[in-house]
Amino acid sequence: MRKLKIFQCSVVSRNLVWTLIVYLCLLTGSAYAQRPRVRDLGINIGTLLPGPYNAITDVAGVLVGHVTLISGEGELVVGRGPVRTGVTAVLPHGDDIYQNQVFAAADVLNGNGEMTGVEWVNERGLLEVPVVLTNTLSVGTAYNGVVAYMLKQDTNRVPLPVVAECYDGGLNDIAGRHVKEAHVIQAIESARGGPVSEGSSGAGTGMRAYGFKAGIGTASRVLPEDRGGYTLGVLVNANCGRRPELLVAGLPVGPELAIQTPPRTRDGSIVILVATNAPLIPIQLRRLCKRAALGLARTGTVSRTSSGDLILAFSTAHRIPRNRATLDSVRTLRDSRLTPLFQATVEATEEAILNALCRADTMVGRDNNTIPGLPLNRLVEVLKRHGRIQ
Amino acid sequence: MRKLKIFQCSVVSRNLVWTLIVYLCLLTGSAYAQRPRVRDLGINIGTLLPGPYNAITDVAGVLVGHVTLISGEGELVVGRGPVRTGVTAVLPHGDDIYQNQVFAAADVLNGNGEMTGVEWVNERGLLEVPVVLTNTLSVGTAYNGVVAYMLKQDTNRVPLPVVAECYDGGLNDIAGRHVKEAHVIQAIESARGGPVSEGSSGAGTGMRAYGFKAGIGTASRVLPEDRGGYTLGVLVNANCGRRPELLVAGLPVGPELAIQTPPRTRDGSIVILVATNAPLIPIQLRRLCKRAALGLARTGTVSRTSSGDLILAFSTAHRIPRNRATLDSVRTLRDSRLTPLFQATVEATEEAILNALCRADTMVGRDNNTIPGLPLNRLVEVLKRHGRIQ
Amino acid sequence: MRKLKIFQCSVVSRNLVWTLIVYLCLLTGSAYAQRPRVRDLGINIGTLLPGPYNAITDVAGVLVGHVTLISGEGELVVGRGPVRTGVTAVLPHGDDIYQNQVFAAADVLNGNGEMTGVEWVNERGLLEVPVVLTNTLSVGTAYNGVVAYMLKQDTNRVPLPVVAECYDGGLNDIAGRHVKEAHVIQAIESARGGPVSEGSSGAGTGMRAYGFKAGIGTASRVLPEDRGGYTLGVLVNANCGRRPELLVAGLPVGPELAIQTPPRTRDGSIVILVATNAPLIPIQLRRLCKRAALGLARTGTVSRTSSGDLILAFSTAHRIPRNRATLDSVRTLRDSRLTPLFQATVEATEEAILNALCRADTMVGRDNNTIPGLPLNRLVEVLKRHGRIQ
Amino acid sequence: MRKLKIFQCSVVSRNLVWTLIVYLCLLTGSAYAQRPRVRDLGINIGTLLPGPYNAITDVAGVLVGHVTLISGEGELVVGRGPVRTGVTAVLPHGDDIYQNQVFAAADVLNGNGEMTGVEWVNERGLLEVPVVLTNTLSVGTAYNGVVAYMLKQDTNRVPLPVVAECYDGGLNDIAGRHVKEAHVIQAIESARGGPVSEGSSGAGTGMRAYGFKAGIGTASRVLPEDRGGYTLGVLVNANCGRRPELLVAGLPVGPELAIQTPPRTRDGSIVILVATNAPLIPIQLRRLCKRAALGLARTGTVSRTSSGDLILAFSTAHRIPRNRATLDSVRTLRDSRLTPLFQATVEATEEAILNALCRADTMVGRDNNTIPGLPLNRLVEVLKRHGRIQ
Repeated sequence: MRKLKIFQCSVVSRNLVWTLIVYLCLLTGSAYAQRPRVRDLGINIGTLLPGPYNAITDVAGVLVGHVTLISGEGELVVGRGPVRTGVTAVLPHGDDIYQNQVFAAADVLNGNGEMTGVEWVNERGLLEVPVVLTNTLSVGTAYNGVVAYMLKQDTNRVPLPVVAECYDGGLNDIAGRHVKEAHVIQAIESARGGPVSEGSSGAGTGMRAYGFKAGIGTASRVLPEDRGGYTLGVLVNANCGRRPELLVAGLPVGPELAIQTPPRTRDGSIVILVATNAPLIPIQLRRLCKRAALGLARTGTVSRTSSGDLILAFSTAHRIPRNRATLDSVRTLRDSRLTPLFQATVEATEEAILNALCRADTMVGRDNNTIPGLPLNRLVEVLKRHGRIQ
Repeated sequence: MRKLKIFQCSVVSRNLVWTLIVYLCLLTGSAYAQRPRVRDLGINIGTLLPGPYNAITDVAGVLVGHVTLISGEGELVVGRGPVRTGVTAVLPHGDDIYQNQVFAAADVLNGNGEMTGVEWVNERGLLEVPVVLTNTLSVGTAYNGVVAYMLKQDTNRVPLPVVAECYDGGLNDIAGRHVKEAHVIQAIESARGGPVSEGSSGAGTGMRAYGFKAGIGTASRVLPEDRGGYTLGVLVNANCGRRPELLVAGLPVGPELAIQTPPRTRDGSIVILVATNAPLIPIQLRRLCKRAALGLARTGTVSRTSSGDLILAFSTAHRIPRNRATLDSVRTLRDSRLTPLFQATVEATEEAILNALCRADTMVGRDNNTIPGLPLNRLVEVLKRHGRIQ
Repeated sequence: MRKLKIFQCSVVSRNLVWTLIVYLCLLTGSAYAQRPRVRDLGINIGTLLPGPYNAITDVAGVLVGHVTLISGEGELVVGRGPVRTGVTAVLPHGDDIYQNQVFAAADVLNGNGEMTGVEWVNERGLLEVPVVLTNTLSVGTAYNGVVAYMLKQDTNRVPLPVVAECYDGGLNDIAGRHVKEAHVIQAIESARGGPVSEGSSGAGTGMRAYGFKAGIGTASRVLPEDRGGYTLGVLVNANCGRRPELLVAGLPVGPELAIQTPPRTRDGSIVILVATNAPLIPIQLRRLCKRAALGLARTGTVSRTSSGDLILAFSTAHRIPRNRATLDSVRTLRDSRLTPLFQATVEATEEAILNALCRADTMVGRDNNTIPGLPLNRLVEVLKRHGRIQ
Repeated sequence: MRKLKIFQCSVVSRNLVWTLIVYLCLLTGSAYAQRPRVRDLGINIGTLLPGPYNAITDVAGVLVGHVTLISGEGELVVGRGPVRTGVTAVLPHGDDIYQNQVFAAADVLNGNGEMTGVEWVNERGLLEVPVVLTNTLSVGTAYNGVVAYMLKQDTNRVPLPVVAECYDGGLNDIAGRHVKEAHVIQAIESARGGPVSEGSSGAGTGMRAYGFKAGIGTASRVLPEDRGGYTLGVLVNANCGRRPELLVAGLPVGPELAIQTPPRTRDGSIVILVATNAPLIPIQLRRLCKRAALGLARTGTVSRTSSGDLILAFSTAHRIPRNRATLDSVRTLRDSRLTPLFQATVEATEEAILNALCRADTMVGRDNNTIPGLPLNRLVEVLKRHGRIQ
């Protein structure tokens, strides 16, 4: 609630409050104080305004659930740990999604990754399952988890789960496959609206991006009324890019923040989910997916060859029930009105990735690998020096 | 009208009448009598029933216009002839298509060919121009013709024409580029509903398929009322396949019909247009395109490497006007109801190709190249021998 | 071995022997005699010749492994059975595929199904895992099985498994998820060359197509030396189509074979794998995938809306090792030489599906659902009546 | 040559020289002095180094030809002018491209535009024609021009031209269709290596981007030897974006440069061509296309709905002759070595767009519409103020 009130303050005072909080945190180095989001640092990405939570949950009805698995430390023993992983579930609404499908589309920027279920999503343009994120070697279990969740409702269901992964083996005992079906079901069942835990939460637990600790990030945009007033939100699991590539608000800050060399790990990936309440048909949602890639580009990565950059977009505007009806009546936004939604997608994607970086604190994982959190004081200093924030 | 009445007769008597006509034609070898269509030979493709014209024009509002260019004979002199080519225009409706767009989708089975405008069709799912067919080296002129036609209405228009080609250089002085902009405009402006001239008409004038004279063919299907009662029509410009591949009603008749070796020419292509009044959104129309490829497969070709097998589908159910509105309300058929339309597409495509073959008579072209018409008496005989027709 | 010898006989005597076998089988109605393949009935699909096994294993090095799970009978009790399912693994070669990748491509005809891993296959054009087939609700477990198999070799591997499914819930307790990781590993490890068990084997155990028992089928073609002499093989898990659609050698036999109404179950899918030793680069393998769809079309289905028609093709001609090299030297077949491989794909796909139908015997499954085997005597009779076989 | 020498100077002295040149130009406001390129302003995009010309022609063999059409002024009279348009041709090499094809791939970011020929390019992965750029309503004529050029060599050719367009109707009498076939042939035949004329040259003559005059831009990157030492060049026809979107080196300079409101015209498009001598097969070139979109994103646009953002990439490493051979031996870069080429594509695309903006001077066109050149002094000032240049 405190968070909400701050957002209802004027921008100036909000920034003031956050600047104080940031400096206090940075000075004390407190591990307990929650790290700020990028906007809290005074960095506004783009020109559209975010929604109340600046999160995918600003799209009415959208729910997010995390299960975070952290245990053990020290040397890697496959099957024993350390464990730094989790599951994140995103649902378009709180009703039975299998019975109340929504329009969706998926797209691939670079396919070194897995998002199951996209053939079916792209054939019909419908999403019929919760979207589940997890680590690379837990896709099968997450798939089973979604199946188990669906069979719990009705053993006659034949779902085609949508499970997307990133590689967290730099910190996590990924070969130990510590995610269990029950975690998946728990993530789905615990999904809720409101503020979304970012950084090292759920599927983001063991992720890092641009050489810093990252993971889950989210942001949203609300179009002005004369542009339709629609809300669009993005949630990412950011695990991509190398440090020299990093752009914050267009500034190549990577080199200036390079306090220490990060441990060499495999390149990672990014999963991007876009939600909107705008009435878009599937062919239009695919176009949002392509804009998410443009937002990603603005954070600096070139979509490295070993990155699985996978994107899914859905609209909550209509529900397509699984019943005996023959026709659905739907509204579709005129082509000429889509650009503001494209802009919202680009901006929210860029900001969601930066939020993942800002919110995630330094983490120590397998073999004492340490992925540093983005040094926010230095970042603020660099951005000030370049006149990008006051 | 005579044609129409025949179709209203019972199937038995219609077949009887046509069998007589066919035999008379074949006996007299008359070049003047119009050749029958495949269904007139007693060959029913599939199980769904055709519409009154068994043509793409059975989809209410759809118009077809041909300009046929035939002149000269003997040795090829580039720029002089012989000319065996033309233009065919297909319009979703008789109103201004630029102002009243329809949902559409395009797909490629084998891309050795050109269909301009498909990037835009597939980006938005809208068709804003008449679809124009012509020969390979006249694509530019046909493009210009559509531009000229559009600028005649309003010089501020910026259309992206849809022009698709097949290669008719086996019979036609294709390098002479005899199609002019005026022919394109004429084809568009003369387009009308009702029976469609097939075989060596319009863009089909110089085409051959499976080693026989072919070109334009069309067919339609009307779904039973309990399947929605929708009409679906197909028009092809058939220029594909080699004689040994030909299947008629599943029977490999090619070898048995091989009365003479056809002149060796380059392999050709096929353009397939699918129209329906079913309320389909673009993602669904793309699925019809894929089924047109299945219908093509049933006529025997393997989509040879040098074939440009290009497909476009549109729905007349909705018009998306080019105005200041922000939203369109549209109906979309439930996914579970699409299979009958898939079946209609497969059947109508197969039959349209066979109609192109049946209707096209032997033609002599450049360098006295002769492409024989499908020998219908032999075809009937072979099909009877295999118990496929009585 | 007996089988092999027969294949080495002249075509005439082979047919003679098989005709005798077929008639003996049909007369005695013996359930124990292995049912013939479609070619054994005297039905030759297309004009190219098959390889020695007429199987995907004719492509040198390709291995197939099955684990077949059959237990229980009577009423369905989820988790108890009856069990009618399994796993099939197809490997491009017997060496470590993760370290010795092959060129590959995947394509979707109708996406109501799952083939995991295709984003990565299509991004790089490489296959790095065994291809595993199973039932719809066992995809997650099969995914885990491939992961486990890979981690057994080296816990640092991060494979992206290729698992494709069809729905066998008409006969099998699919919600009971009886496939275990060990079965997947066993299918991979037991894969071998030579004759392939068809019909109700491995992943095909509970499948049915066109209203008859079906499942695994395979066929191959060997190009004449002057066409390159390449071998191409296809393996399908056939679970698609309804009885009235069925075409055998182009003949609509469905109605004539309809001895009894099959139990109504959900529509199913088909997975098609194409292997060749021709040196094709990924963009060319994608073209083979499209031809597999044309072969499917010739068996009659229209790729129903609820069918997951997923296709993957690979070439064994080159191995792309996972090492520090920077360049690979590869050969690629000239575009103009591809048509014979397209023809081989179409023919082998059609024949593989028919083999699945011919080889699979009547099966009784959950709730005593009975899926009849294709009545081969009737089929032979119908084909004879139409002069398609002697 | 003078240019070349400057580039061979040390970076410091080169910058010094250019800073002087820039300031002299800006002070005198000379219309005759050539405007600098973005790198001449001291702005280095990315971290890789450009080739000697910092142009697509740094890829050995690549040729560029322009025909620029400027005539008339004042009020628009369709067919009379004013004319502000042209043609640009890009050839992979100076030999007969129809006989010596190169690997290629095309991709669409937003399809509101036309690039003909891409079905064939993407089916085979080969480019067999010069790539021609022009205005939207001259696509047909440019198509004809390429056909005429090809028929001049041999009347038996059947080329499928690649023609891509942007809309220049804000300055140009586009409906007057002033481009003639002869211009197209002239652009192709006059194509040469070395420095490339940018801005209002050739097809770029009437283009504007981000509210400023733009058009043709080019840039290149040379990989370090230990990354393969390959050269990659980009050429754009930049006609996209609105002023508030513009990012220069990541900085949102649009608002600060807004000296005057640009005339409202339709949104435009961008065509991006990528050339490299790296040995890439088509599936890899497609990945370069996707990275060009990321480079575009860094200049600020969100790929507006009415933008035709079309991309084509080719490799000069191999020539695939049109002869009777059956096999080609080609090299292909290992997947793991592609990221530096991705980076080169992103950087060169961003810089090429900025070069188009920097080099293009203010232009007055139809109805005295004036599109201002990017105010370089202000730009330098803004970038200095933000510490992005010294």
